[in-house]
Amino acid sequence: MKTVSIVGVGLIGGSFALALRKAGFSGRIVGVSSQAAVDAALARRAIDEALPLREAAAISDLIYLAQPIDRILQTLGEIDSVSKPGAIVTDAGSTKREIVARAAKAIRHARFIGGHPMAGKESRGVEEADADLFQGRPYVLTSRNPDLESWIERIGARLVFLTPEEHDRLVAVTSHLPQLISTALAAVIGAQTEAEKVAGPAAMDLTRLALSPYDIWRDIFATNAEAVDAALAAFLAKLQTLRAMLRNPEMELEFEAASEAAKALRR
Amino acid sequence: MKTVSIVGVGLIGGSFALALRKAGFSGRIVGVSSQAAVDAALARRAIDEALPLREAAAISDLIYLAQPIDRILQTLGEIDSVSKPGAIVTDAGSTKREIVARAAKAIRHARFIGGHPMAGKESRGVEEADADLFQGRPYVLTSRNPDLESWIERIGARLVFLTPEEHDRLVAVTSHLPQLISTALAAVIGAQTEAEKVAGPAAMDLTRLALSPYDIWRDIFATNAEAVDAALAAFLAKLQTLRAMLRNPEMELEFEAASEAAKALRR
Repeated sequence: MKTVSIVGVGLIGGSFALALRKAGFSGRIVGVSSQAAVDAALARRAIDEALPLREAAAISDLIYLAQPIDRILQTLGEIDSVSKPGAIVTDAGSTKREIVARAAKAIRHARFIGGHPMAGKESRGVEEADADLFQGRPYVLTSRNPDLESWIERIGARLVFLTPEEHDRLVAVTSHLPQLISTALAAVIGAQTEAEKVAGPAAMDLTRLALSPYDIWRDIFATNAEAVDAALAAFLAKLQTLRAMLRNPEMELEFEAASEAAKALRR
Repeated sequence: MKTVSIVGVGLIGGSFALALRKAGFSGRIVGVSSQAAVDAALARRAIDEALPLREAAAISDLIYLAQPIDRILQTLGEIDSVSKPGAIVTDAGSTKREIVARAAKAIRHARFIGGHPMAGKESRGVEEADADLFQGRPYVLTSRNPDLESWIERIGARLVFLTPEEHDRLVAVTSHLPQLISTALAAVIGAQTEAEKVAGPAAMDLTRLALSPYDIWRDIFATNAEAVDAALAAFLAKLQTLRAMLRNPEMELEFEAASEAAKALRR
């Protein structure tokens, strides 16, 4: 692997570039992004140079798509005809079903492996990029590729293999559902005058996600609505069950089971 | 104020005793608790001596009830006849309506002021007690009392005055609802095999409360079921609204409003 293109040099793309360098990658790193992002990435030394998409794709052994989901879907349709035969194309999009399906049609010369690093920060942009962002974090791939796997291991991430469907179903429950819960809770608390007078750590922890900007969520809901709807249905049903049990001694069993599940998540 | 009794020398009672000392209280601190709790409190130097409830009540200028809610309700019925006229009785229970109503009937010689320090820790017991536990935290009182207010300010807490009804309505939304949400989410995530493979900070933050033991919650739900039910109804309605909007561009307005509410909570 001699040349890597990072398409979308923000927090994730920039961190992947810095992580590759730290892990010993000595080839060329090309950035494809807006002028402002490219300038910041050059200043941050995350990339060696900037090129337009098709020029970058034509010389790359690995094309890393770290754009918003709708832009990834668009980029997939533009790079295959110019890519080197056998080049690796992977992405960092938060949902996988639509992206992998689109890639299956669009990517022929190159090889596509869907990816999702389970890492992030509250703030975005290459200014926040961090060579250690992926350390110890799960990194989902939707298919195998020894070259890509070896670099992902070298940047310190934990490889997890899931089908696109499994991935989307699991993140609907562990990530997309928590976001909607937090947004709904913040709205309900916000509707209570004086709630801030008594809000403690519980309210703070559960409303932190509500601070997230909508722009990344638009694409996530658009490309995973079915799984998100199923996760919401399961959660609403469980909460209705608990609501009916406020004075029922069997609530203790619900608390015990949930506590065990929360512990299992932490093992 | 020469003699203070702490009834229930656990995390809160023990911390209140240590905080009083740190704030310059030079009188006698008597503990009323189980033998094990009293031994631990003496070892921790949180109390000067231990006495049975009625003996302690008879000599105290301030009686601080830091027991579980059902025990507070019981203690209120046992102390008034032996208390000094004009002694202050206050409590640290997590709901206020039932406690204040019970006190209005039971406390005649002494003066009752309902209280709720919005402070805590994940672990309990006097071993975890901390003189700084109340520093900067809201401390709700349901009525005024200059002596009590002055000590609460001296231990570093922020005084908040609320009626018992206001208090219970607000904590239903900011504390009791988050607990039930976290318990329900942990149960839903627990039902998904392999969810732990992709669980990130969102899932961790939102399932932390699910680790709480049920014993304190039994009394909270029993004494605040109506307000908790109303909070659940508001939350379920909001989440149903969001569910219907997964592909609707107006979801952006919901995210913006919730984000503003979450920011307001942090001001």
